[in-house]
Amino acid sequence: MTHPTAPTLDDTPTLALARDLLARPSITPDDAGCQQLIGDRLKACGFTLETLAEGGVINLWATRGTGTTLAFAGHTDVVPTGPIEQWQTPPFEPTIDEEGYLRARGAADMKGSVASMVTAVERFVAAHPDHQGRLAFLITSDEEGPAIHGTRMVVDALRERGEQLDYCIVGEPSSVDTLGDMVKNGRRGSLNATLTVIGQQGHVAYPHKARNPIHMALSALDELTRTQWDDGHDGFPPTSFQISNLNSGTGAENVIPGELTARFNFRFSTAFTADELKARVTEVLTRHGLIDGKSFTLDWSLSGNPFVTLPGRLLDAVSHAVEAECQRAPVLSTSGGTSDGRFISTLGTQVIELGPVNATIHQVDERILADDLNILSRVYERILTTLFANQA
Amino acid sequence: MTHPTAPTLDDTPTLALARDLLARPSITPDDAGCQQLIGDRLKACGFTLETLAEGGVINLWATRGTGTTLAFAGHTDVVPTGPIEQWQTPPFEPTIDEEGYLRARGAADMKGSVASMVTAVERFVAAHPDHQGRLAFLITSDEEGPAIHGTRMVVDALRERGEQLDYCIVGEPSSVDTLGDMVKNGRRGSLNATLTVIGQQGHVAYPHKARNPIHMALSALDELTRTQWDDGHDGFPPTSFQISNLNSGTGAENVIPGELTARFNFRFSTAFTADELKARVTEVLTRHGLIDGKSFTLDWSLSGNPFVTLPGRLLDAVSHAVEAECQRAPVLSTSGGTSDGRFISTLGTQVIELGPVNATIHQVDERILADDLNILSRVYERILTTLFANQA
Repeated sequence: MTHPTAPTLDDTPTLALARDLLARPSITPDDAGCQQLIGDRLKACGFTLETLAEGGVINLWATRGTGTTLAFAGHTDVVPTGPIEQWQTPPFEPTIDEEGYLRARGAADMKGSVASMVTAVERFVAAHPDHQGRLAFLITSDEEGPAIHGTRMVVDALRERGEQLDYCIVGEPSSVDTLGDMVKNGRRGSLNATLTVIGQQGHVAYPHKARNPIHMALSALDELTRTQWDDGHDGFPPTSFQISNLNSGTGAENVIPGELTARFNFRFSTAFTADELKARVTEVLTRHGLIDGKSFTLDWSLSGNPFVTLPGRLLDAVSHAVEAECQRAPVLSTSGGTSDGRFISTLGTQVIELGPVNATIHQVDERILADDLNILSRVYERILTTLFANQA
Repeated sequence: MTHPTAPTLDDTPTLALARDLLARPSITPDDAGCQQLIGDRLKACGFTLETLAEGGVINLWATRGTGTTLAFAGHTDVVPTGPIEQWQTPPFEPTIDEEGYLRARGAADMKGSVASMVTAVERFVAAHPDHQGRLAFLITSDEEGPAIHGTRMVVDALRERGEQLDYCIVGEPSSVDTLGDMVKNGRRGSLNATLTVIGQQGHVAYPHKARNPIHMALSALDELTRTQWDDGHDGFPPTSFQISNLNSGTGAENVIPGELTARFNFRFSTAFTADELKARVTEVLTRHGLIDGKSFTLDWSLSGNPFVTLPGRLLDAVSHAVEAECQRAPVLSTSGGTSDGRFISTLGTQVIELGPVNATIHQVDERILADDLNILSRVYERILTTLFANQA
């Protein structure tokens, strides 16, 4: 039984477009025709389209106008559904339930945002056909996967051409409890390493003839886990260090192993560069008696540098729009995992993330309030109006 | 070319018996007829024989006389040969080389000792047919294997009957550089444990929502590895603690694991009981914030309690015999791995280990000086004479 006042998927152009996108089973890196649909809509309101495809990934780069550039960034791929029998409604049959929730895989992460962006731009362009600046869309189908042939590749292409990208709004679901309660104005860096500690194998009955790499490593690893790296910085939460994997041993209970392997990850603020963290780790290991290149080796892999968008023209416009449409001032945060913002920020771009409530992302029964997409579309539109409307 | 003065395998009854035993490929737990040979010899000089067989293992228990009992303990099984093409002479074709070395698998560990024991007893009984006390042999074919159906089982049977076993000489190769330079007068205990630390799995980007069992465990494990348990006791080397295996992690680099497993081993002196060590480990873990049964569990396995034979009638006789026959005072030691002495000592028996040089045991080209077996047989005989000869 449908609630008499519940919205339907034809209520608004935003919900109708969201439905069309959500009905396509675009499990990463499959786009399933979503970008064709988005491109057709953008072309109809004057955008120039470009498709950059590589390694089975399709990316759309679309622009309208010239000058100071604001890009909407989003992705059309979704994570797998998980056990489909656990869904209350089929994940690729978008449904609005009687409480007003739009249910589908990708509703929150992030086809809903993409639909809101497109309709926001359509209304803005209709009202301001000769707007200032340049509007852009950067849509990828490889955000949930390895993220190599997606935004990273497009950003490299833009950098090569010398394209300037001043502002970027990523549609990631940044809200926690209610729409607009949180805007992400940066992300921590992520640095991975594999530590190998080299000892000398032997028999447990003759420990003086062996060097136990477990015993050699413990005090240094303990210090690393107990270190307060910073107290937070530029709005970032404190830098964290986590050991994800720790392995040593031959399986036999009477053998002292010859080697230990530890894999660990830093999520770090702008208080550090990756090189500074690397130097600190080496210093700690050395101080605990381990010798670089002899009793230990480190293999580093930088997943992303930290970035932050400090208050300025973009954040002012975003806060103003959220306050006007959502009746609340958004909290700025740099918490959480990585997003494509890490790639875009390398162009010197002010990047923020603003999207729906993220409570159900990557879960069964992913859902958001359907009307939040209508509100989100008005927030996006108001940002454009603030930044790019024709002078009256 | 054979050295003109090199001994041959028919030179003495001891070497002839050693040859007959070494020619039998009695890879553990196979006895290959060795005990039949030994039993026939003992029966011929008045021993009563008993065979205790279980689980494919043959054990011989033989006694002569009554009263205070001295048992010779040995094993007829040997470890596998390893790569046979690496042996200079075939491992089951006993050979004396031109430098006087008897070469064969089991020459040192420990058919050579067994041959020396048998001929020592033969000579002693011939000289003292009405000797004091009781002579015994405890020969097993399961010392190099799981050691469940061997000496352990025989000792359990003897305990059940209420048999008293005052002294025991185990023929393990206790000598380091030259025959008689070291006598083992005890062995450390061996206690194994598996520690499981239970955390809460999560994502490395949200460490506050997880509890990393690696981080939880490190400081306690570090303290355990740095603890000086004792400074040695009753001639034992200091108690040692070694972690042999340490494992945690899902394999993914962005996941905080839910559980850590550490396997460790104590080699411990008589300064501790196993229960005291267990309590100490639990105390350390608890003091570092881990909760027994909730955030950690311990699964203990006692491989053997420590035992020591302090100076007294047996050790006096042994030292005297070594000094007389080898022209050196033996060093007493409790170092090294476990032996069947750990089972025998549970009968309240004074146990020592005295045998040939152990430099090549468990290796290819296992060998000892052939003449050392003749000397060893005289050492054993002299011990019997000291303890059990008829009063003049």
